[in-house]
Amino acid sequence: MKSPILNQLALLLFCSSMFSPVLAVDNAPNGIKLPSEYKDWRVISQSHRIDNNTLRTILGNDIAIEAARSNNTNPWPKGSILAKLVWKQAPEQHWPSAIAPEKFVHAEFMIKNDNKYNSTGGWGYARWLGLDQKPYGTDKDFAQECVACHTPVKDNDYVFTKPAEMP
Amino acid sequence: MKSPILNQLALLLFCSSMFSPVLAVDNAPNGIKLPSEYKDWRVISQSHRIDNNTLRTILGNDIAIEAARSNNTNPWPKGSILAKLVWKQAPEQHWPSAIAPEKFVHAEFMIKNDNKYNSTGGWGYARWLGLDQKPYGTDKDFAQECVACHTPVKDNDYVFTKPAEMP
Repeated sequence: MKSPILNQLALLLFCSSMFSPVLAVDNAPNGIKLPSEYKDWRVISQSHRIDNNTLRTILGNDIAIEAARSNNTNPWPKGSILAKLVWKQAPEQHWPSAIAPEKFVHAEFMIKNDNKYNSTGGWGYARWLGLDQKPYGTDKDFAQECVACHTPVKDNDYVFTKPAEMP
Repeated sequence: MKSPILNQLALLLFCSSMFSPVLAVDNAPNGIKLPSEYKDWRVISQSHRIDNNTLRTILGNDIAIEAARSNNTNPWPKGSILAKLVWKQAPEQHWPSAIAPEKFVHAEFMIKNDNKYNSTGGWGYARWLGLDQKPYGTDKDFAQECVACHTPVKDNDYVFTKPAEMP
C-alpha cells in the first residue's frame, strides 16, 4: 500500500505533466525567454507579405505601446518589446476577395536593451516556431541572421514596422 | 478687473476646449456609443481585402477574447464586442513587397445582445469614420445595411471573422 505522501507526489507529477505543454517552451539559443502574456499585448500594426504569402500582426508590450502612441520610436525606449505573429494566408471562407490568417507560422520578438544586446544592434532577437513554439536557431549566434536582414533599416532603429495611424 | 471666480471659469472652459477633440465623439445614429478603450483590446485576427485595398485588424473586448480562445463563438456570448480597425493599404516603405496600413479609414463595431439588438440579428452595429471619428449613417435604421451584408454568414452568428490560430 502506498503512503499518502507518495500518493500526493504522484498526483503532483500527474498534474505537472498535464500542464507541461503550456509551461515547457524552451528558451531561444541566445538565452532569450518567450515573453509571457504576449498574446495579450496591444496592436501596433499589421502587414501582408506578398513575397511569401504571410499575414503579420505586430504587438507591443506596455513600453512599446506608449512609445508608439507618443511617436517616440527612434530610438524605441529601453524595455520595448515588439512581437510579430505570422500566419500563412488563405482566402477568407465567406468573403473570398479577402485574405485571412490560416496556419500559424511563428511568433518573433525584438527586445530593446542597448547594453544587453550590444552585439546585435541594441535589440535581442528571438523566434518560436509553430503552435508548439520550438525555438528558432541552432546556436547562440543565430540572431546575426536577424541583424543582417534588419540592417537596411538601421536609421529606423532597425525596425521595419511603422505604428499604424489610429484616432 | 475680473473676479477670481470668472478667471476660474475661463480656465475651465479653456481646458475643456483643449480636451474636446478627444471627448466629443458623437454616438452612432442608432444610439450606440463609441466603446472606450477599444484600442487597448486584444487581437482576434486580421485581414486584407484585395477588393477595396484595405487592411483590417479585428480586436475583441474581454468577453469576446475569452470566447475566441475557448472556441465558443457560435453564438458569441452576450456582451461580446468585436472591433474592426480599417486602413487604406500602401507598400511598406522599407520592404516594398509587403503591404502595410496607411491612412486610417474607420473603426467599426459589432455588439452582441440578442434582446437589445433583436431588430438587427442580435448584434448592434456602429462605425466611426476617420481620425475625427464621425459617426456613419444618417438615421437610426442605417444598420440594416450592415445586416444585409452580414446575412450570408447568418449561420456563423453573422460574423465573417474566424479567430486566428495561436499557440
